[in-house]
Amino acid sequence: MKKHIINFRVRYAETDQMGVVYYSNYLVWFEMARTEFFRSLGLDYAKMEKEKNIFLPVVESYCRYRSPLKYDDMVAVEVWIKEMGSSRLTFEYEVKRGAEAVTTGYTKHAFIDKNRKPLPIPDDVRELLEDPSIST
Amino acid sequence: MKKHIINFRVRYAETDQMGVVYYSNYLVWFEMARTEFFRSLGLDYAKMEKEKNIFLPVVESYCRYRSPLKYDDMVAVEVWIKEMGSSRLTFEYEVKRGAEAVTTGYTKHAFIDKNRKPLPIPDDVRELLEDPSIST
Amino acid sequence: MKKHIINFRVRYAETDQMGVVYYSNYLVWFEMARTEFFRSLGLDYAKMEKEKNIFLPVVESYCRYRSPLKYDDMVAVEVWIKEMGSSRLTFEYEVKRGAEAVTTGYTKHAFIDKNRKPLPIPDDVRELLEDPSIST
Amino acid sequence: MKKHIINFRVRYAETDQMGVVYYSNYLVWFEMARTEFFRSLGLDYAKMEKEKNIFLPVVESYCRYRSPLKYDDMVAVEVWIKEMGSSRLTFEYEVKRGAEAVTTGYTKHAFIDKNRKPLPIPDDVRELLEDPSIST
Repeated sequence: MKKHIINFRVRYAETDQMGVVYYSNYLVWFEMARTEFFRSLGLDYAKMEKEKNIFLPVVESYCRYRSPLKYDDMVAVEVWIKEMGSSRLTFEYEVKRGAEAVTTGYTKHAFIDKNRKPLPIPDDVRELLEDPSIST
Repeated sequence: MKKHIINFRVRYAETDQMGVVYYSNYLVWFEMARTEFFRSLGLDYAKMEKEKNIFLPVVESYCRYRSPLKYDDMVAVEVWIKEMGSSRLTFEYEVKRGAEAVTTGYTKHAFIDKNRKPLPIPDDVRELLEDPSIST
Repeated sequence: MKKHIINFRVRYAETDQMGVVYYSNYLVWFEMARTEFFRSLGLDYAKMEKEKNIFLPVVESYCRYRSPLKYDDMVAVEVWIKEMGSSRLTFEYEVKRGAEAVTTGYTKHAFIDKNRKPLPIPDDVRELLEDPSIST
Repeated sequence: MKKHIINFRVRYAETDQMGVVYYSNYLVWFEMARTEFFRSLGLDYAKMEKEKNIFLPVVESYCRYRSPLKYDDMVAVEVWIKEMGSSRLTFEYEVKRGAEAVTTGYTKHAFIDKNRKPLPIPDDVRELLEDPSIST
């Protein structure tokens, strides 16, 4: 199964007065994980947007917050593709501190062009993402 | 049914290079709507934390992004309670531009104390939130 | 002297684990104040970008943090123009809680086009901004 | 001269509709650089707050934005101490893309305790920070 993990530390800016990471920041981390997952497969999302006018906006997001994270915690975010349709993609995520999965979630995305018209997933992209473990 | 609506404009800071509101910001708006909903019912969430040591962290969040929002758009976020358990609460949200519901979502919360121990919803809080349309 | 004041409450998202507003958020509030100041003078910054391809990026920012702000505080941000050159503009800001100026600052901006080439301040914009109290 | 450099990529969340990094994010990066600079000297800022009740809030911030940064750019932030008083500290920063310093700035900080009372810089901290090139 194609997976990718990114590692980083919690920023002070990402905490709130409860002393833990504010809940919307996990979606930002999911986005970082997607970018690096794509890069690990040979896909450059920045170039996809700029050179091919292919955009991948989020159409759904879900998070399950199990345990809080704190400033300066070392965090790992693992990402993989759960589902791939004709023009849609679902990523799953696991946010870990050490061995503990503190947050899990998913995001669903649509491939669109500059005018927000749905696009079929380009063949070269599909080939790089394809993986026997993905449901379609 | 007890509902509350907040109105505000999209900040420049909330946009991204796709020219639309970045997806994690909706969770921030949900939080603003919750605070004002509580205030509209006579509940002061800031005081709940400070004076009563009652915290209401998010345990689940979900967003369905239907249509993008842009800088300076006038936005309305409507919030109501969908479910109330013994120590849990689910809010539902509708983000609107004019009559169009551009994003919908929910957040589930747990009542906890300073040491993150679950708390039953205090009676006075429950009374103010109660509403025949809420499922329990 | 042309001034404008915006009023709003501190968001939970804007606090950090010190229990006060995280320092970069003041720059976001400055931007909100600029947008509304422009609107109060009959200028629509969103349209300036979209229809006239005039952009006003920040070239310098400064903040003096005197006293912290907390979640749910009612905040006022006052803004006015301090200096206007041929293609540059300096805004000054005062962030207040009640009568107390808790933070002050300024931002310097350049008028540029889509390709980031400096533009003279358009005559109709200059006319609306002009004010005998501005140094040039 | 004691210096430290951190390296990371621009997040999508950090861009705005101008297609470049939104100006308040540089202050967030400055904070990351401070944390890692401290760690490189053997100081753990997270522990300073939690175990010693020493806080280092920002009292002034300044940024000079020379050239914009884009999504996915590799960024380096260099940090060093410019000035050290009896209970105050000034950090300077250089944000670089390759060899180009795209943004420079500084932040001034006060050492305070939990009740926001000024503290002298603790001797062990001062010793680790000390550097012949710092003005006092």
